[in-house]
Amino acid sequence: MVTAREPMASLDLPAVDDLVFGGHDIRDQSIEETVEQANEAGGVPNSKTLDAVREDLREIDERVTMGTARKCGQVVEELSDDKATNEGTLAEIVSQIRSDYETFAAEQDVDKLVVVNVASTEPPIKGDEKFDTLDELETAIEEDDSDLPASSLYAYAALVDEHPYVNFTPSTGSALGGLRELAAEKNVPHMGRDGKTGETLVKSALAPMFAGRNLQVLSWEGHNILGNTDGLVLEDDANKEGKIESKGNLLEQILGYDHHNAVRIDYTPSLGDWKTAWDHIHFQGFLETKMKMQFTWEGSDSALAAPLVLDLIRLIAYADEHGEGGEQPQLASFFKSPQGVDEHDLSVQFQKLYDYSERHLNDAPSGTVE
Amino acid sequence: MVTAREPMASLDLPAVDDLVFGGHDIRDQSIEETVEQANEAGGVPNSKTLDAVREDLREIDERVTMGTARKCGQVVEELSDDKATNEGTLAEIVSQIRSDYETFAAEQDVDKLVVVNVASTEPPIKGDEKFDTLDELETAIEEDDSDLPASSLYAYAALVDEHPYVNFTPSTGSALGGLRELAAEKNVPHMGRDGKTGETLVKSALAPMFAGRNLQVLSWEGHNILGNTDGLVLEDDANKEGKIESKGNLLEQILGYDHHNAVRIDYTPSLGDWKTAWDHIHFQGFLETKMKMQFTWEGSDSALAAPLVLDLIRLIAYADEHGEGGEQPQLASFFKSPQGVDEHDLSVQFQKLYDYSERHLNDAPSGTVE
Amino acid sequence: MVTAREPMASLDLPAVDDLVFGGHDIRDQSIEETVEQANEAGGVPNSKTLDAVREDLREIDERVTMGTARKCGQVVEELSDDKATNEGTLAEIVSQIRSDYETFAAEQDVDKLVVVNVASTEPPIKGDEKFDTLDELETAIEEDDSDLPASSLYAYAALVDEHPYVNFTPSTGSALGGLRELAAEKNVPHMGRDGKTGETLVKSALAPMFAGRNLQVLSWEGHNILGNTDGLVLEDDANKEGKIESKGNLLEQILGYDHHNAVRIDYTPSLGDWKTAWDHIHFQGFLETKMKMQFTWEGSDSALAAPLVLDLIRLIAYADEHGEGGEQPQLASFFKSPQGVDEHDLSVQFQKLYDYSERHLNDAPSGTVE
Amino acid sequence: MVTAREPMASLDLPAVDDLVFGGHDIRDQSIEETVEQANEAGGVPNSKTLDAVREDLREIDERVTMGTARKCGQVVEELSDDKATNEGTLAEIVSQIRSDYETFAAEQDVDKLVVVNVASTEPPIKGDEKFDTLDELETAIEEDDSDLPASSLYAYAALVDEHPYVNFTPSTGSALGGLRELAAEKNVPHMGRDGKTGETLVKSALAPMFAGRNLQVLSWEGHNILGNTDGLVLEDDANKEGKIESKGNLLEQILGYDHHNAVRIDYTPSLGDWKTAWDHIHFQGFLETKMKMQFTWEGSDSALAAPLVLDLIRLIAYADEHGEGGEQPQLASFFKSPQGVDEHDLSVQFQKLYDYSERHLNDAPSGTVE
Ligand SMILES: NC(=O)c1ccc[n+]([C@@H]2O[C@H](COP(=O)([O-])OP(=O)(O)OC[C@H]3O[C@@H](n4cnc5c(N)ncnc54)[C@H](O)[C@@H]3O)[C@@H](O)[C@H]2O)c1
Ligand SMILES: NC(=O)c1ccc[n+]([C@@H]2O[C@H](COP(=O)([O-])OP(=O)(O)OC[C@H]3O[C@@H](n4cnc5c(N)ncnc54)[C@H](O)[C@@H]3O)[C@@H](O)[C@H]2O)c1
Ligand SMILES: NC(=O)c1ccc[n+]([C@@H]2O[C@H](COP(=O)([O-])OP(=O)(O)OC[C@H]3O[C@@H](n4cnc5c(N)ncnc54)[C@H](O)[C@@H]3O)[C@@H](O)[C@H]2O)c1
Ligand SMILES: NC(=O)c1ccc[n+]([C@@H]2O[C@H](COP(=O)([O-])OP(=O)(O)OC[C@H]3O[C@@H](n4cnc5c(N)ncnc54)[C@H](O)[C@@H]3O)[C@@H](O)[C@H]2O)c1
Ligand code: NA
Ligand code: NA
Repeated sequence: MVTAREPMASLDLPAVDDLVFGGHDIRDQSIEETVEQANEAGGVPNSKTLDAVREDLREIDERVTMGTARKCGQVVEELSDDKATNEGTLAEIVSQIRSDYETFAAEQDVDKLVVVNVASTEPPIKGDEKFDTLDELETAIEEDDSDLPASSLYAYAALVDEHPYVNFTPSTGSALGGLRELAAEKNVPHMGRDGKTGETLVKSALAPMFAGRNLQVLSWEGHNILGNTDGLVLEDDANKEGKIESKGNLLEQILGYDHHNAVRIDYTPSLGDWKTAWDHIHFQGFLETKMKMQFTWEGSDSALAAPLVLDLIRLIAYADEHGEGGEQPQLASFFKSPQGVDEHDLSVQFQKLYDYSERHLNDAPSGTVE
Repeated sequence: MVTAREPMASLDLPAVDDLVFGGHDIRDQSIEETVEQANEAGGVPNSKTLDAVREDLREIDERVTMGTARKCGQVVEELSDDKATNEGTLAEIVSQIRSDYETFAAEQDVDKLVVVNVASTEPPIKGDEKFDTLDELETAIEEDDSDLPASSLYAYAALVDEHPYVNFTPSTGSALGGLRELAAEKNVPHMGRDGKTGETLVKSALAPMFAGRNLQVLSWEGHNILGNTDGLVLEDDANKEGKIESKGNLLEQILGYDHHNAVRIDYTPSLGDWKTAWDHIHFQGFLETKMKMQFTWEGSDSALAAPLVLDLIRLIAYADEHGEGGEQPQLASFFKSPQGVDEHDLSVQFQKLYDYSERHLNDAPSGTVE
Repeated sequence: MVTAREPMASLDLPAVDDLVFGGHDIRDQSIEETVEQANEAGGVPNSKTLDAVREDLREIDERVTMGTARKCGQVVEELSDDKATNEGTLAEIVSQIRSDYETFAAEQDVDKLVVVNVASTEPPIKGDEKFDTLDELETAIEEDDSDLPASSLYAYAALVDEHPYVNFTPSTGSALGGLRELAAEKNVPHMGRDGKTGETLVKSALAPMFAGRNLQVLSWEGHNILGNTDGLVLEDDANKEGKIESKGNLLEQILGYDHHNAVRIDYTPSLGDWKTAWDHIHFQGFLETKMKMQFTWEGSDSALAAPLVLDLIRLIAYADEHGEGGEQPQLASFFKSPQGVDEHDLSVQFQKLYDYSERHLNDAPSGTVE
Repeated sequence: MVTAREPMASLDLPAVDDLVFGGHDIRDQSIEETVEQANEAGGVPNSKTLDAVREDLREIDERVTMGTARKCGQVVEELSDDKATNEGTLAEIVSQIRSDYETFAAEQDVDKLVVVNVASTEPPIKGDEKFDTLDELETAIEEDDSDLPASSLYAYAALVDEHPYVNFTPSTGSALGGLRELAAEKNVPHMGRDGKTGETLVKSALAPMFAGRNLQVLSWEGHNILGNTDGLVLEDDANKEGKIESKGNLLEQILGYDHHNAVRIDYTPSLGDWKTAWDHIHFQGFLETKMKMQFTWEGSDSALAAPLVLDLIRLIAYADEHGEGGEQPQLASFFKSPQGVDEHDLSVQFQKLYDYSERHLNDAPSGTVE
C-alpha cells in the first residue's frame, strides 16, 4: 500500500482493520467462489491466505445486494441471469441504491461510507454534454433517459447523500458535469478514473524519460493479454473502447506530440488473474538513429489493484474528514485518467501526494496541549 | 539534445556549430577509420552522414595528439602500439598535456577550452584518500606516484589552467579530494561521472515507480551485451569493476533498502556499436504476490552518448561563463554517479536542470533598452 | 539461400546470375524508388548495395507492365491511380497476361519462364468450390465471374502455357481445384502458399518441442508489427483474414489439440521494412504447473523473403526440367500453408527437401564414362 | 511425461505407481522441508499437492541414507554439516554404496533397481583419460585416487552389480572409459549427461531452423537466473564449469561453424525453484542483413525435470528388461550431452525414440495365443 509509506503513513488515516466491506453486484457467483477460482487458476491468493479469509468473504457476501446493469453493454448483461438487473426506472433504481447504502451504513454502524466503483467496464457514453449541469442530470433521471449508465447512477446516489466516491474503472462514474456540480455543491470529495496498476503505470514512469532526453518516440505499441472476467468483458469492442482510451492518451500529454500509439487487449483465459503487457517503443535519437525499448509487465491484476483501492478509501475518507470536496488532485497518481488533472508524469503526480501529506502533517496540531 | 528543449533552448548557450574538436588518444587508428567501421558493422552513422562529415573527421584527426595510458590497465595499453603512452614522469606528462591544451586553444583561437573525458574506462583506483587534498595530490605528481590514473592527470591539467572539465566515464577523473579542492580554489566548474545513456537511465526512471507504489523489489538483474571497443575494454574484469559499480548503486539509493542487484557486461563483437540490455525485475506486492517486469533496451551506444556530450559542453561552458565553479548539481541527470548529488530519481534530476535554466532566464536582463 | 547448402548446392540448379526478372505491378512507383525508401527507412539494403544494383533495378522496371487488381480488395485498388487495373473481362485480362508472359520470354530469350506471385495479399475468396474443376474454372473465366481473384488469373495464365508457378502469398493463386487439375493435366509444377519467413517459421520449429515433450500449450498469442506496404495492406481486415489463417493453423496440426491461439498484425509505419513479432506461449507441465515462453523475432521482411524466392525459382525450374508436375511436397518447408502437405514440423519438412535432393543426386549419372 | 505419448505409451513400461523411491543425500534437510520451501517460495508444488504427498515424502525420507561428497567441490561440502560425507577410502565408500543399494532393493522387494544421479553438479574432472579402462579404474579405486568424483562412485556401484544407471547431471558419472567398459561387459544399460529441460531444449529446437534456412548465427548469448540450491551450487565457478559446457556445445554441432556463444548462470534467490533464461540470437541473412531473435523461458526447474526422470527410469528399465546394455542412443533427446550420440537436432533425437518404440511394438508378440 502506498499509504504504508511515509509521509502518508504518518497521516491520521482510517485503519485498514476498521474497514467493513459490502456492495452491489449483478452476478450470483459468491465472492468465495470467485476467489477460489483465482486461487486455482493463478495461485493468487495462495491457499493459506484463502483459508484465512474464507469466513470474512462469506460475511461480505451477505452484505452484497443486487445492483443495476443499465447501459453496461451486452456482455455485462450476460454475466447475470437475473432480469432484475435491467429493470425499473432510473428514479426507482437511484432510490433503491440510496436505500441500500443507508441500510449498509446503519447495519454496520459505520462512521463514514465510501463508495468505490470496481464494477466491469462500461462502454463509453456518447453525448455526455447533455448531463453537463446538475439540473439536466436530475431531469434525465426523472425522465428515465436511457443513456445514463449504471456507474453514474451509483455515483449520483453516493454524492447526493454526501458519501465520498471513487471510480476505479474507465466507466463514466462521476465525470459528468452534473455530478461534478453536485459534488461541489455538497462539498463531497470524489475522484477517478481507471486505476493505474500496470502497463499504464509503467508508461507514466517511462515516457517522461524519453521526453526529458529529447528522444523522439516514433511509435508505442502495447499488447495486453489477460484471463479474468475483466478480460472477458474487455473482449467486447464496445466495452474495450473506454479502456483503450485511458491507456493511450497520457502519452500524448507527456510527450507533447503526436505519434503512432496503439493499445491492444486480448482475452487469454489460461492466464486467470494474471496479465502480461508487452510494449514496443520505437524511438529516434541523434542523427535520426532509430532505436527501441521493449518491456513486459507480468502482474496479478487483483494483487495490483487491491492495495490501491484500500489506499483510495483511506485517503478520500481523510479528505472528507478535512472538509475537502470536489475532485482530489493529490490522488492523480492512482489513475490512468485523473479527473481534473492534466499532469501524467508519475513522479510529479507522486509529488502531489507527498506535498499534500506534508502540508497536512505541518498543519496538524502537534497533539500537545499547554 | 537535451539543450534543444525548453527551457534550456532559451539559454544563451554556445552554438553547436561554433564548437571545434581536438584531443588526445593513445591508439593510432584514425577517427575516419573508426567511424567507417561503425558504419559497416552497425549502420550508425549511415553512409550519407559519413560522407558528409568525412572531411571534418580528417581535420579533427590532425588535432588529436598522443596521450597517456598511465594506470589504465593492460587491455587499454594493448590498444596502442606506441610505448610512449606509458613513458615519462607524472610531472612531465602533466606538463605535456597542459601544453597540448594551450596549443590547441591557441591554434584554433577558441574563446573557451572545455575538456571532456571520453577515454576507455580505467580500473578503479584503491586508496584514493591519499589524494584527498590538493597538497597531497601535487606532491604525488612531483613524486611520480604510480597510483594516479591518466583520467586524473587530464583533469588536473584542465583545472589547474581553469578549463571546465567533464568526466563522461566511470574513471576517477576529477573525483579526487585534491582535484575538488583545486576546482573550488580556482572556481572552475567540473562534473562527472559516467554518462547515463541506456540501461541505467531506464533504471533511474523505473525504480522510483516501484518505490512510490511500495512494490518491493526482490531482485534486479541486468545483463548487457555490446560489441564496440568500449565492450572490449570492459571484458577485462579490472576495467569492468568501476562500470558495474556505477550501474548498480543508484537502485539502493532510490529504493532505500538492500536487494539482490547484479549487473553483467559481455562483449559480443557482432553487435558493433549496438548495445542490448536485458533487465529482469522481480518484485513483490500485496499478500506477498511475486510479479515481474522485464525490459530490453537496444541502442546505438554512440548515438546515445554523442548528444549528451554536446549538451554537457554547452552547459558547463555556460556555467563557467557565469562564474559557477565546483561541482554542478544541475547536470546530475546526465550521470550514473553524479558527483556531489545523492538524488537518483531521474525526474527529480531533470527538475534540477529545469529550475537552474529558469532561474537563469529570470535573472537575465530582458534585453530591453531604455 | 537454402539452395546454397548441401545437398541442394550439388543439384544442377539454374544459376542465380542467369535469372532475368520482369513482371506485373499495379502501382506506378518505380522499383528504384521503392528500394530507396526501404534504404532510408530501415537501412536494408544499405547504400552501397543500392548503388551497386541501381542500374539493374532500372532495367527490371522496364520489364514490368501493368497488371490486374481484380478482387484484390479496396486497399490494393487504392495503391494504384490507374483505372485500367480493374477493367476488361476476365477473358481479356487472361489473354493479356499470357501475351505479357510470352513477350517477356521472347524478348529476354529465356529457356524457361517461372511465375512467382509476390503481389499484395488478397482477401480470401468465399465459395471456392465453384472453381473445383478445370471446366468450371474456364466457364467462370468466359462468363466473367466476378469472384475470381487476380492471383488465380496470373496462375491460370502461367499453367495453361506450362510455366511453373509459385504462390509466395496467402492469396488463392493455384489452390483452386480447377487449377490443380490444369497443372496435373499439363504436368506443370506449382506450389504455395505464403512464404514462411518469420514468426510462423519459428512456430514450426518450436511447436514440435512442446508436442514431443508433452508440454501442453494452453495459449499461443502472437502479435506482429510491421511498417511496409505489406503492413499497410494487412491493416485492412479483409486482406488480413487470409494471412491470419495461414499464420495460425499449423499449431493445431502440430500439437494435435485445440488451444487458445490468436495472431494479431498491426501496421506501424516507423518500422519501415522491419517486422517484430512477439509471441507468448503459456504451457502446462508436470502437476499442472503453468509456465511460459516468450520470443521476439526482429527481421527485415524483404531480406528474409528474397532468398526464399530465389530458392523457389531454382527448385521449381529444376522440378519442371525433370518432368515433375503438380504440387511439390519437397518445397513444403518454404510455406506457411504448403499445398498438398499436412506436415508442419519444420525439421520433417526440411528432411523432405534433403531426401528429394539426395534421391536426385543418387539417380544422376555419376558423370563417368566407361 | 514423454512416455505418456504414443508410441511410447503402448510399450510395456513399468507403471509409475509401481515405482519406489529411496537414495543417498549429503544434507540433513528432510525432503518434506525442501518441498515446503519450494511451495512457499514459488508455489510449486501447490499446497494441495504438497498435502496429498506429505506422507509419501516422509516415507521416502526414511529410505535416504548418507552418501559421499568426494570431489564435489567446496560449495557442496558446505551443504552438509556431516564430516562423514568426505571420509573413508574409495574402496570403503564403494562397498558402502553397493550395500546401501542391496539393502534398499531387499527391503522394498523391488524387481529391478535403477540408479539415477540427481545430485548437485560436481566440478568437471581433469585427466579423465587415466580412468579409460576398467582395469585402470578399479586400480584407482583400490589406490584411493583422490581424483575420482562421487558421481562415478555411485555409477560404479550400480553398474558392477548390474543396475541400470542414468546421469541426469553434468557430473562425470558413467562417462569414464572404464565405466563404459564395465557396462558393456556386464551388458547393463546406462545413459547421460545432464537433463535437457529448458534453455538448452529450446536451443536444440531452434538452432536447426537457423541451420536449415542458412541464416548465419553471429552470436548466441544466454543468461540464466535461478534461485534454488542448484543455482547456489552453480554460483561456484568450479561447479558451474561443467554446466556451461553442456549448455553451449550443441550449437556448434548443429550449426557446423564457430560463432560467439556465451552462457551465463546467476543465482537469484528470490526466484525459488523458478528459472528464467534470456537468449539473444544475432544472425545474418541475405545481403549480410543482421537480424535478431530473443526468447525468455520461464519454468519451474523441478516441474520440468521430474517427469523426465520418471520417463528415463521407465525407459531404461525397459531397455534392461530387453537385454540392451551400454549407452542408449534412443534416449538422446533427454540430455544436453547425450553419451555416444553426436546428433543434437531435437526433432531427429525425438525420431530416434519413436523409431525405437515402434521397432519394439512391431517386434512384440501380439499377445495372442492359439
Ligand atoms: N488491475 C485491475 O484489476 C484493474 C485496474 C484498473 C481498472 N480496473 C477496473 O476495475 C473494474 C473491476 O476489475 P476486476 O478485475 O475486479 O473485474 P471483475 O470482472 O473480476 O469484477 C467486476 C465485478 O463487477 C460486477 N459488475 C459488473 N457490472 C456491474 C454493475 N453494473 N453493478 C454492479 N456490479 C457489476 C461483475 O459481476 C463482477 O463481479 C473493471 O472495470 C476494471 O477495468 C481494474
Ligand atoms: N553510450 C556510451 O557510449 C557511453 C556511456 C557512458 C559512458 N561511456 C564511457 O565513455 C568512454 C568512451 O566510450 P566509447 O564507446 O567512445 O569507447 P571507445 O572505446 O570507442 O573509445 C575510447 C577511446 O579512448 C581512447 N583511450 C583509451 N585510453 C585513453 C587514454 N588514457 N588517453 C586517451 N585516449 C584513450 C581509445 O584509444 C579509444 O579511441 C568509455 O569510458 C565509456 O565507458 C560511454
Ligand atoms: N517476408 C515477406 O516479405 C513475406 C513473407 C510471406 C509472404 N509475403 C507475401 O508476399 C507478398 C509481397 O510482400 P511484400 O512485402 O513484397 O509487399 P509489397 O507491398 O512491398 O509489394 C507488393 C507489390 O504487389 C503489387 N501488387 C498488389 N496487387 C497486385 C496485383 N493484383 N497485380 C500485380 N501487382 C500487385 C503492389 O503494387 C506492390 O508493388 C505479400 O502478399 C506478402 O504477404 C511476404
Ligand atoms: N531442471 C532441473 O532441475 C535440472 C535440469 C538438468 C540437470 N539438472 C541437474 O540435476 C541435479 C539436481 O538438480 P536439483 O535442482 O534437484 O538440485 P538440488 O540442489 O535441489 O538437489 C541436489 C541434491 O543433491 C544433494 N547432493 C549433493 N551432492 C551429493 C552427493 N555427492 N551425494 C548425494 N547427494 C548429493 C544435495 O544435498 C541436494 O539435496 C543438478 O546437478 C542439476 O544440475 C537439473
Ligand atoms: Na520518473
Ligand atoms: Na525442430
